Amino acid sequence: MATTGFHVAVVGATGAVGQQMLLTLEKRNFPIRKLTLLSSSRSAGTVLKYKDEDIVVQEAKPNSFQDVDIALFSAGGNISKLFAPEAVKRGAIVIDNTSAYRMDPEVPLVVPEVNEEDLKLHNGIIANPNCSTIQMVVALEPIRKAYGLEKVIVSTYQAVSGAGAAAIDELKNQTRAIIEGETIEPKILPVKGDKNHYQIAFNAVPQIDKFEENGYTFEEMKMINETKKIMHMPQLKVAATCVRLPVETGHSESVYFEINREGIDVENIRTLLGDADGIILQDNPNEQLYPMPAYAVGKKDVFVGRIRKDLDEENGFHMWVVSDNLLKGAAWNSVQIAESLVKLGLVK
Amino acid sequence: MATTGFHVAVVGATGAVGQQMLLTLEKRNFPIRKLTLLSSSRSAGTVLKYKDEDIVVQEAKPNSFQDVDIALFSAGGNISKLFAPEAVKRGAIVIDNTSAYRMDPEVPLVVPEVNEEDLKLHNGIIANPNCSTIQMVVALEPIRKAYGLEKVIVSTYQAVSGAGAAAIDELKNQTRAIIEGETIEPKILPVKGDKNHYQIAFNAVPQIDKFEENGYTFEEMKMINETKKIMHMPQLKVAATCVRLPVETGHSESVYFEINREGIDVENIRTLLGDADGIILQDNPNEQLYPMPAYAVGKKDVFVGRIRKDLDEENGFHMWVVSDNLLKGAAWNSVQIAESLVKLGLVK
Repeated sequence: MATTGFHVAVVGATGAVGQQMLLTLEKRNFPIRKLTLLSSSRSAGTVLKYKDEDIVVQEAKPNSFQDVDIALFSAGGNISKLFAPEAVKRGAIVIDNTSAYRMDPEVPLVVPEVNEEDLKLHNGIIANPNCSTIQMVVALEPIRKAYGLEKVIVSTYQAVSGAGAAAIDELKNQTRAIIEGETIEPKILPVKGDKNHYQIAFNAVPQIDKFEENGYTFEEMKMINETKKIMHMPQLKVAATCVRLPVETGHSESVYFEINREGIDVENIRTLLGDADGIILQDNPNEQLYPMPAYAVGKKDVFVGRIRKDLDEENGFHMWVVSDNLLKGAAWNSVQIAESLVKLGLVK
Repeated sequence: MATTGFHVAVVGATGAVGQQMLLTLEKRNFPIRKLTLLSSSRSAGTVLKYKDEDIVVQEAKPNSFQDVDIALFSAGGNISKLFAPEAVKRGAIVIDNTSAYRMDPEVPLVVPEVNEEDLKLHNGIIANPNCSTIQMVVALEPIRKAYGLEKVIVSTYQAVSGAGAAAIDELKNQTRAIIEGETIEPKILPVKGDKNHYQIAFNAVPQIDKFEENGYTFEEMKMINETKKIMHMPQLKVAATCVRLPVETGHSESVYFEINREGIDVENIRTLLGDADGIILQDNPNEQLYPMPAYAVGKKDVFVGRIRKDLDEENGFHMWVVSDNLLKGAAWNSVQIAESLVKLGLVK
């Protein structure tokens, strides 16, 4: 730990995303003078490592945030609702990775490559968008900026780690059981605590999060609403179908989009995305080069390939977008927001 | 074997689809007086069962088709190009499950629920469409008929069995190896004989079949071109992105479509599809009822659910379509064509 820098708290430190947050803070060498790790009472007492230092995880309480500069939350929406205001009251800036505050008009919803400037409007809480939204807007923003954007239709191919560590275990155990010819008893996926649970191994499940009244899932509505908010485009047409796959980590997306300009070809889009921050272009059909989740794990970038012009719509294109949902989709985007706050002088 | 009925030949009897053809002929009790099983010289000599009878598979030769009434081909495009004309010359009707003749204007491309009448125009060869196309047009046809169809954008979630028995083995062995922490060496998928091979276990691979010059894969172009041909709609706008998943059998599709009529709601579409031939509606978000490939295996129907109205386009809808790619996508559609030929008096 450095002698200068910030007092950082991580809430939900023992979870799948929390672990990645610690690793990311370490890798980025974020300026930390004190690190407080918090969790529910159930996980309190766990010892975690940060740069060879052992840190005991403590139960989160209002006073845990005394003297904290930046608090990274990733312990579920209820914990955020309970403790984020307490942290803010004590002078911390909260970067919240749950859906609790994302659509709150007072709360900036930020992907630094897209709307870093929105951080200046914060009132203590900054929301980290949904994982599947983040990677899509990173890929869409350079296109919007250059050519305008009219319409987006996305179908997702999402990994189980988005549903937490228990879902990863379920995928692994279920896969092993099916291969060994044993019977399985799904208990977690598609949605922990929902009425029915289905096989995820060797299957594709078209439900992520619960259903809303309009027949869309919350995950689908998150992609629709968050995209409009982050890109400052309430009028943008966005549709989403979200599907869970037997992939441990790494979300993929088949994205159709229509731009506002005629005469643009695939090479224009490739050049644009190849030069963009946070994007690695992997797009060469002749070499069978395209992004895949199994090869994106552990990397913080958004990978884009399979860029094609629609065969009917002059302004329509297709692309395939892949990213590590625990990194750019969660931990890395949160730490990146913290770095932006420091860079913009927004954290004291 | 019955004493009346037809002399049926199955070419490629030992393959993944061939096996399902035998099972389907048996289950449907198709009127067969003689069954000839054919294959390459490599598989000749294999003994297969049909209704408790042992049948020795013979090497396919031009004269194998002497006296055959109906020949079901599923042994790759080259075998079809070589032997289908020989079979026709000897008086057989060929039902070809490869892509060899699908886009030939002289050859009907048939999904009985959609264009059974096209069988009447045959010149000896009838083509069975690509698996991913079949299940989509079964779901779209009742909608086209009632409301007209303007545009389709599909993203697929395809099983490895579409790439044959070796791909199934690769998925199983690779999954086992990864779970046991062993290194893997992909050799078959995404495309047998292509330059690069990628991990399929716990991954999503956005390539099915080789790439065309326009950046689309052959699989994607098959879906686009075959849909227009089967539905008799050269003007239909169709776009496809085809993705291979770690699923053994059962293709899924996220389908966006625009109809030609205003004022239609989700209940109209549900009623339409619930009453349609070959479709089982599984669509109740409140009960988490929707189709999934793991639960569609071994069933001959097309399952449809997650029907939603687009939130921006008055005439736009989304749906999720699942079917067993070896059955409705291949063996069952071929046998169903044979049944239609008998019903329409087209086979002597």
